[in-house]
Amino acid sequence: MLNIKIKSNIKDYQVIFIKDLTKQIHDLITNYSTHFLVDINIWKKYEKELTQIKLAKSVKYFSAIEKNKTLVEVNEYIEFLLENNVQKKDKIIVIGGGLVQDIGSFTSHIIKRGIEWIFIPTTLLSMADSCIGSKSGINIGKYKNQVGSFHPPIEIYIYSGFLDTLLKNDFINGIGEITKHALIKGGKAYSNLEKELEKIYSNKNAAEKIIFDSLLIKKEIVEEDELEKGIRKLLNYGHTFGHALEGYTKNKIPHGLGVLIGMDLANYISMKRKLLTQQEFEKIHALLKKFISVKSIPINNVDLYIKFLSTDKKVVENKVDAILCKGIGKIKIIRIVFDKELNNNIQSYLKYFNHG
Amino acid sequence: MLNIKIKSNIKDYQVIFIKDLTKQIHDLITNYSTHFLVDINIWKKYEKELTQIKLAKSVKYFSAIEKNKTLVEVNEYIEFLLENNVQKKDKIIVIGGGLVQDIGSFTSHIIKRGIEWIFIPTTLLSMADSCIGSKSGINIGKYKNQVGSFHPPIEIYIYSGFLDTLLKNDFINGIGEITKHALIKGGKAYSNLEKELEKIYSNKNAAEKIIFDSLLIKKEIVEEDELEKGIRKLLNYGHTFGHALEGYTKNKIPHGLGVLIGMDLANYISMKRKLLTQQEFEKIHALLKKFISVKSIPINNVDLYIKFLSTDKKVVENKVDAILCKGIGKIKIIRIVFDKELNNNIQSYLKYFNHG
Repeated sequence: MLNIKIKSNIKDYQVIFIKDLTKQIHDLITNYSTHFLVDINIWKKYEKELTQIKLAKSVKYFSAIEKNKTLVEVNEYIEFLLENNVQKKDKIIVIGGGLVQDIGSFTSHIIKRGIEWIFIPTTLLSMADSCIGSKSGINIGKYKNQVGSFHPPIEIYIYSGFLDTLLKNDFINGIGEITKHALIKGGKAYSNLEKELEKIYSNKNAAEKIIFDSLLIKKEIVEEDELEKGIRKLLNYGHTFGHALEGYTKNKIPHGLGVLIGMDLANYISMKRKLLTQQEFEKIHALLKKFISVKSIPINNVDLYIKFLSTDKKVVENKVDAILCKGIGKIKIIRIVFDKELNNNIQSYLKYFNHG
Repeated sequence: MLNIKIKSNIKDYQVIFIKDLTKQIHDLITNYSTHFLVDINIWKKYEKELTQIKLAKSVKYFSAIEKNKTLVEVNEYIEFLLENNVQKKDKIIVIGGGLVQDIGSFTSHIIKRGIEWIFIPTTLLSMADSCIGSKSGINIGKYKNQVGSFHPPIEIYIYSGFLDTLLKNDFINGIGEITKHALIKGGKAYSNLEKELEKIYSNKNAAEKIIFDSLLIKKEIVEEDELEKGIRKLLNYGHTFGHALEGYTKNKIPHGLGVLIGMDLANYISMKRKLLTQQEFEKIHALLKKFISVKSIPINNVDLYIKFLSTDKKVVENKVDAILCKGIGKIKIIRIVFDKELNNNIQSYLKYFNHG
């Protein structure tokens, strides 16, 4: 059985790959006094495997949409737990993607000044990326992820069977981060992924190996910098440009696609600035392109796009510490200015991508 | 200038006694980008000394009543801070008693996954006790303090001038905890307090010395056991019996008075069980009695009082780890059963107190 141990400033924890979900639920119910927080859609699709959760002290079915990721919902869930007599030694078991993870992790952190929780991720993104690293983010009004904590689960169980019911767009969300990890690490991690990534849709063994390798890279980074004071910032690769694209398109471009295009744009800017060779840019572009599900990028007004860029929380005056690419395995933080040159770089990229 | 350094698992911090509040506010405003959270009543009474807070990035005036100590209020305050462009490096300056401290500490802990805060306590209780120890507690519906965190301020400024406008009951709240600390520590700490405590109402130097000594004892305990896994539990001395009395009287008995009577009752039970000599019981009783502002304790139904006892979160089945007294400086955790003997002990105490 694949297994990854993560060192944490808060408390060490581990990721365990499982084959039998029913048995795992049975064991959790038997070993602990439990409260389940479950994505309602996962419950509908996996009711048979999950049926024993009904024996827990409480079960909350959660509708995993962005507008529910609020402190108001956390407040309601905590009241529900207290009505169900939650105790300091109980465990909260979270089954869902990153959004349910955020609610579960943050709730566990603040209720009774912290109780332990266990995570069973159900999306590729949460399996291959967000399940480790301890962070949670909760929205406040129109402000996204402005509240949160560092509170890792004690155990994470990866069950690849959940991939069977995953939508294409949800695969893309995971593929963005998986590719990002491989590009940060470079070497074999990248060349293996280049060969194997397309198998993720249909081959369970390949998928588990890809998830495992992706977690190993993230583990290395978060162990070195759990509280995001240095190297962990590299994990924002593709995200500054991606978020701005999500904002510009009013979220018509989903997050994973934003990250893929964001990395491609970051690489293109790197090439234009002689940080990256054309050959290497094209090598990476060939892989990213396979998963970028649009033929053209809907930016008509580059000034407006740069305005969205400038709302990034890392922006100071008219500069941002962008994550650029000096080659596979050579991802670096480089300060760029919101100037004419940047505008030209982006114009040129759009021409290249949309007509190239 | 008196100064106490506190070691913390989270981040070391310090308590500094100041004489000039106006200058301190000026320095904070000058050195940091600040957001003030201020008890509205303190603002009304100390507007002159505090006037410079108007130069901060934001000021929130808070009505420090129990029904406002909720996650809903925290949510509103965070939205207010975000609208006022709060940044990760900004400081939240909290001016108020324990309740405002709870809101400020918890908000600082969760906003942007933690920003630094500074505390200026304005009640005797918060100066001499709650300002150190890192804990915060927030209410959820009818459930008290069920949400919270460990997030110490970076600096605490004690300005004894705030005692000038303190009500008698608010003094009693502090005196309960101050006496508790001295009884836990024993020796000179207790004999000094016995001599000096009554001066606290009128003599500023004596008051500062009493606060300083009280904090030194608490410092020793929370440094050894910040996360309340062992010895810190002694700080509940007087609280189990006191909370039940507050509950029984529907909070007509204020917290500080509850703690004073709770310690006296715990001592009486200790004496009845041959843990404490009658002589030492009476020595402590003589001090406590000076500050217990009622002539009789309004318990008519001891069974009902024991029911309130049994709702304490430390109760397991019909037993509780009570904090009893084997002598001054010898406070111990001792398991007691809710049985006929306890009922008799309490009956006997009421007779002693109410008619003795």
